[in-house]
Amino acid sequence: MPGLRHLVSIDDLSLDEIKKLFVHARTFAADLRASSELCRGMIAASLFYEPSTRTRLSFESAMLRLGGGVITAADMRNLSASKGESLADTARVVSGAYADIVVLRHSSEGAARLAAQYSTVPVINAGDGAHEHPTQTLCDLYNLWIERGHIEGLDVVLAGDLRYSRTIHSFAYALARFGANVVCVPAPGFEMPDYVLQRLREEFGVEPQRADAKSLGDLATQSDAVYLTPQKPHQLSLFTDARGFAIDRVDALYMTRPQTERHPSGAQLENYLQLGRRELSAESLRDAVVMHPLPRKDELSEDLDSDPRAIYFKQAARGVPIRMAILASLLGRLPALEREPASTTKHHPVTEGANPCVNPTCISRTEARHVPPQYRVSSRHPLRVHCGYCSHAIPLRLVGCSTTRHWHDPESVELRKVRPDHLVFLADLAEAERLGFAPATRANAPA
Amino acid sequence: MPGLRHLVSIDDLSLDEIKKLFVHARTFAADLRASSELCRGMIAASLFYEPSTRTRLSFESAMLRLGGGVITAADMRNLSASKGESLADTARVVSGAYADIVVLRHSSEGAARLAAQYSTVPVINAGDGAHEHPTQTLCDLYNLWIERGHIEGLDVVLAGDLRYSRTIHSFAYALARFGANVVCVPAPGFEMPDYVLQRLREEFGVEPQRADAKSLGDLATQSDAVYLTPQKPHQLSLFTDARGFAIDRVDALYMTRPQTERHPSGAQLENYLQLGRRELSAESLRDAVVMHPLPRKDELSEDLDSDPRAIYFKQAARGVPIRMAILASLLGRLPALEREPASTTKHHPVTEGANPCVNPTCISRTEARHVPPQYRVSSRHPLRVHCGYCSHAIPLRLVGCSTTRHWHDPESVELRKVRPDHLVFLADLAEAERLGFAPATRANAPA
Amino acid sequence: MPGLRHLVSIDDLSLDEIKKLFVHARTFAADLRASSELCRGMIAASLFYEPSTRTRLSFESAMLRLGGGVITAADMRNLSASKGESLADTARVVSGAYADIVVLRHSSEGAARLAAQYSTVPVINAGDGAHEHPTQTLCDLYNLWIERGHIEGLDVVLAGDLRYSRTIHSFAYALARFGANVVCVPAPGFEMPDYVLQRLREEFGVEPQRADAKSLGDLATQSDAVYLTPQKPHQLSLFTDARGFAIDRVDALYMTRPQTERHPSGAQLENYLQLGRRELSAESLRDAVVMHPLPRKDELSEDLDSDPRAIYFKQAARGVPIRMAILASLLGRLPALEREPASTTKHHPVTEGANPCVNPTCISRTEARHVPPQYRVSSRHPLRVHCGYCSHAIPLRLVGCSTTRHWHDPESVELRKVRPDHLVFLADLAEAERLGFAPATRANAPA
Repeated sequence: MPGLRHLVSIDDLSLDEIKKLFVHARTFAADLRASSELCRGMIAASLFYEPSTRTRLSFESAMLRLGGGVITAADMRNLSASKGESLADTARVVSGAYADIVVLRHSSEGAARLAAQYSTVPVINAGDGAHEHPTQTLCDLYNLWIERGHIEGLDVVLAGDLRYSRTIHSFAYALARFGANVVCVPAPGFEMPDYVLQRLREEFGVEPQRADAKSLGDLATQSDAVYLTPQKPHQLSLFTDARGFAIDRVDALYMTRPQTERHPSGAQLENYLQLGRRELSAESLRDAVVMHPLPRKDELSEDLDSDPRAIYFKQAARGVPIRMAILASLLGRLPALEREPASTTKHHPVTEGANPCVNPTCISRTEARHVPPQYRVSSRHPLRVHCGYCSHAIPLRLVGCSTTRHWHDPESVELRKVRPDHLVFLADLAEAERLGFAPATRANAPA
Repeated sequence: MPGLRHLVSIDDLSLDEIKKLFVHARTFAADLRASSELCRGMIAASLFYEPSTRTRLSFESAMLRLGGGVITAADMRNLSASKGESLADTARVVSGAYADIVVLRHSSEGAARLAAQYSTVPVINAGDGAHEHPTQTLCDLYNLWIERGHIEGLDVVLAGDLRYSRTIHSFAYALARFGANVVCVPAPGFEMPDYVLQRLREEFGVEPQRADAKSLGDLATQSDAVYLTPQKPHQLSLFTDARGFAIDRVDALYMTRPQTERHPSGAQLENYLQLGRRELSAESLRDAVVMHPLPRKDELSEDLDSDPRAIYFKQAARGVPIRMAILASLLGRLPALEREPASTTKHHPVTEGANPCVNPTCISRTEARHVPPQYRVSSRHPLRVHCGYCSHAIPLRLVGCSTTRHWHDPESVELRKVRPDHLVFLADLAEAERLGFAPATRANAPA
Repeated sequence: MPGLRHLVSIDDLSLDEIKKLFVHARTFAADLRASSELCRGMIAASLFYEPSTRTRLSFESAMLRLGGGVITAADMRNLSASKGESLADTARVVSGAYADIVVLRHSSEGAARLAAQYSTVPVINAGDGAHEHPTQTLCDLYNLWIERGHIEGLDVVLAGDLRYSRTIHSFAYALARFGANVVCVPAPGFEMPDYVLQRLREEFGVEPQRADAKSLGDLATQSDAVYLTPQKPHQLSLFTDARGFAIDRVDALYMTRPQTERHPSGAQLENYLQLGRRELSAESLRDAVVMHPLPRKDELSEDLDSDPRAIYFKQAARGVPIRMAILASLLGRLPALEREPASTTKHHPVTEGANPCVNPTCISRTEARHVPPQYRVSSRHPLRVHCGYCSHAIPLRLVGCSTTRHWHDPESVELRKVRPDHLVFLADLAEAERLGFAPATRANAPA
C-alpha cells in the first residue's frame, strides 16, 4: 500500500525521523496521562505468536495512554495452530476492520515483513525470532539520547552475549548509523559474529580495531575488547569521531543476558561476565550509564540497583513513551514520519528455482507453502544478497540471469551487467541445467 | 427476565429485525470510528470456554469501536476447570455487576441458551459446539445483502463440507427463511444430513430437488448437486422464486473447509473439493461472489485472492460492523430489536424420567448435575420434539401424558390431545411401568 | 515510598477507612456507569501468577467502570517462567511507566508485600497463596454492612472448612476488629487452627467459648460450635457485645467450600457440611443472610438459590463497587484513605543467620535468591515473631541480640531488653556458635 508506513526494521526510519520520535517521546514522558485523547477511537491488535509479557504490556500500556483500545491474542501460536491459518491471511483479516494497527511478535524471522506486505494497516515488529526488535532498539537509543543529549560520537560498551543477542546486533548497527563508537566486551565464546562485523564494515563504513582496554579495568579482564569506529565519513552519520583507540571515558555500558534460548547445546556459561560494583570501578566507567534490556539473571548484580549509574529500570519505563510516539506516528496522529520510508531497498521475488534462504526459522521456510521467497541486493560489487524476510545472507554458488539464461561464478565481473531483479540463485550445475541455464563462457556463446 | 433480549439462535431474530441490523451495520461500516461514544461506560465480558481468537477479537473490536470496555477470559475451560463452577453460576456472577453483556463461546451445544436463562444481562452465542453461531450467520447474510442488495430469491451455492459444518446448516435455514434458493455442492461423503433437509422441509417449506448442475462446470463434476427451493409461500419469506431447476446464474458461492475437528475417524478427505480459478470458470459463476468463513486450508486456492469475485477477506472484515450492530442493539442503544423476540417457541421442563436428549455433548449432559433438561415441540402432527438446549431431535419411543398417566405410540393420534407441557418421554416399557404409566388402550380405560 | 498506600493486608486499613470505602462503594453501586470519568487516563496492571478468572474479571470490570484502562497478564507464571525474572524486578518495571496501579495474584505467601516494597505505584493484593485476600474480605464485610447497616455486635456463623480457607481466617480477624461475634461451625476435621485462635486472643482480645448451639438446629448437629466473643473492650472495635453465649438469632451465615487444593492428602470430605433448606430451618436462622465466596460445589445446595436469605450472588456482584472504591482511593481519586497507613507494625530485616521462616511457600523461600528475609514482632511479652512476608510464626529456639552477641531462651525475661531490630533467630547451638553468640548467663558476663 503506497503511503502506508510500517515499523518492521529500524532501517525503515531515517535518523531524522528517529530524532523526531525522541522529541515526541520526551513530551509524552513529561506527563504520561496528558495525551489520552490523541488516539481515541483507534484500536491496536497485539498478536503474539510467542509470549513476551513485558513487550506486550509495554505496547498495550502505550496504546491505552494514547486513549486507544487494545485487542489481545497473548498466545496466538496455541490458539490458531489447530486451524493452521497462514500469517498472511491473519494479517489480512485482522487489518480488515478489527484493528487500526498491528503489533506482531513471532518466532520466525521475517514474519513482520510478511505481515506488512498483506496488512492494510501499519504493522509494528515486536520481535521476529532472532532477527529484529526495532522498538527495543529505539528505546535503547532514546535512553542514550535522554541521558547524554545526543548519540553521535558517544563511546558505548556492548558487553556479554554479543553473539546470539538480537538486540545487540540491531543496536550496534543503529549506533554505527548515528556515528557512535562501539567497544565490544564479549563474554568468552560470545563474540560478535563475522557477518555482523561484515555488515558494519560494508554498510556502515565501520572498521573494527583492537582496542587498548586496560582502562576498562576489571570489566575487560575476562574479555578481548574490540573497538569499532567509523573510519570514513558515513553518509548517514551526522558526526564522526576522530579520536584514537584508547578508551578514556565510556558514556554507556550496555550489558546483555546470555540468550540461552538461542544457544547451541554445549555453549559454556561458566565464564560469563558478571557485572557488579567491582566491574564498574574503573575510572573510565565513572560516568557510564549502565543499561540492560531486562529481564536479567546473574549477569547483572542486584548490588548495582542503587548505583546512580544504573538506569536499567528507567530504561524499561522509557519503553512506554517511545512506543507511544511510534504508535501515534504510524497512526498519523503525530508529524514524525515522512509519507514514504527513506530506505529504498528493493525486494525482488525469487522467480526460479528453490527458495535460496538457508535459515530454517525464516518465515519463508516455516510457512513455505504460503510465502513467496524474496531477496534484496545489499551490495553489487562484490555481490551480496540477503533474504528479503530474515536478512540472512544467501549463499552464492552459481548465479544466473533470467533473461540471458546464462549462469556466472559469483565473483564474475559479468554479473555486474545483470539487473538485480533478473538474478537467479542456483544450488549447483544440476539445478542450472534443469532450469535451462548454460555457463556464460565464450564457448557457450551462440555457435 | 421479561424484556431482556439475547442472541442465542438466529431464530431469536425476525427477518425485519435482521434487516434493521444490516442497515445499522452499514452505517457503522461507513466510518468505523464514528460511534465511539455509543456504548461508553458499558462492558462486554468475553467468556471463551474454547479458544477462537478470530471470533473473540472481532467481538472485542466491535465493543471497543462502540466506546465500550471488554473483560476477557480467553480460555475459561482451563481457568475454571479446577474449581468446577457450573455455567449457570458463572452466568449469574458475571452478569451480576461485572458486565453489561456476555459473549459466550462453549464446546457444549446449548450452553448459550442455558447461560441466557440465568444471566441478568444479554447473552450472545459466539458458538456453542456444533450447534449455532448466529453472529457468523448474520455476518454471512449481511455480506449477501451488501453485495446483492437483497437476499430474497438469490441463488446461493453451498459447497464443501455440508455435513459437519455448523455455519452451513444455520446459513441454509436462514437462507430458506429469507426465501433464497440453495444449491448444495457437497464434497463426496459430506452431504447435507437428512435431519437438516427434514427441518428445511418441515419448518421452512423447502423441497429438495435434484438439479441440473451441468451449468456449474468444473465445480460440480465431483459432486451431486441438489437444488433446494421454497415450494410453497413461506410465512416468513418475503419473496419466493418460481423459476425452474436449471442453474443459470449463481449469485454467491459459499465454500467451507472440512470441519476435521468434528469428523468421525476415517472420514475421507482425498476427494475434498478444491476451489480455484478453474472451478470458477463456468459462465454461470461469472458474477458469483465467493465467500468462505475462514480460516481456510487447501480448499480455497490462494490464486483466487486477487479475483474480484473473492470477497472472503471483506466478509471477515464485515464481522466487525455487524457485531457492533448486534452489541449496540442488545445493549439498548440502537432501535433494531422489539422488546420481545418474535419467536415464541415454548421450552418445557422435563418433569419425569431421565434426560431424553441423546447428544453426549449437549450442555444438559456435560453439566448434567446442574442443568434441568428441557424440550420444545417443533411439530405436533407428526410429533417432533427437540432438546431445548442443543436442538437435537429427541427419539420418541413411548410418549406419556403426565396427567392421564397413559403412554402412547409416537404415531398415535391420541397424542394430539396431550398438552405439550404434559409430554413424558419414556425409554421403554420398564421405565413406563416404573414411573406409573399404563398403555392408552381401551383395555386400560377405567373398567 | 512515603505517602504511597498499598492494600496488601486488610490490616493496612483502619476501621474508619474501611467504612469510608463502604460509603463510596454504595454510591458506585447505585449506578455502576455513573463514574466512568473518575480514573480516566489511568491504567491498572493485572498480574496473575496463578489463574483466578473471577477475581481478575472483577478487578478489571471495576477499573473499566471507573473509566480507566487495563493491561493483563492472565498467566504470568507460564509467561515469565522461562526468563525467570524476580518478582521485585517485575514490580519495578511494571510500576515504572506501564501502570498506575498493580493488581497482583501470586501463589507464594507474602508476594504482594514484596511487590509493594519495590513498586512505585500502589499494589493491591488479589490473593497471595494461603495468606491474604483483602479485597475478598472487604467485599464480605461490605455485604454485612449493606445487609445489616452495621457490623459491630453482629452474630456471624462461619461454617465449613475453617482450617484451610484463607478467606475465613482474614474474615474472622476483621470481624473481631469490628467487634462482631463469631460462631464457628466447622465440618469435622476442619476446625479453626490454634494459631488463628491464638491471634484472635492475643491481638484482638477475643476469647473462644464453647457455645450452646442447640438453637442452630440441623446446622450444628454435625459440628461442635464454638462462640468467639470480644471479652474485653478492644481498642479498635467501636462496640462490643455483652450478651451471653446462647445463640438466639444469627445475622449472617458464611459458608465455605472445602479448600481441597490446600488439603493434605487424606483429608476426609465424606462428612463435609451440606447447606440446604433443611439446615436453614432453625428459628435462629430465620433472618440470617447466607453468604459464600463462590465458586461453590456440593456444600451449598442449589435449592437455596431462590431463598430470599441467599445473597451469595449479590455478594459476588458487590465485589465490583467495593473494588471500584479501593482502586479509586488508592489512585488518589477518592478521599477515603489517610496519607499514611494507621498500622505501624515495623518490619525488620534478618541481618544474621539463615531465613527463619519455615513456610516453604513463603515468597522469602520461593524466591530466596532475591528476597531478603524480614520479620515483625507481634508481641514482646511473650515474644511472638512472624515472618514479615507470609505472617507465619517464626519458631523461637535460641534468640540472640546482634549487639551483645548473647543468646537467650525464648522465654527469658532478659529478652525484653533486646531491641526488636536487634533480634537474631538461631536454629541451634551450633549456629549460635558459628555466628559468634554466647549464652547470656552470668558465666558469660564479662569476667
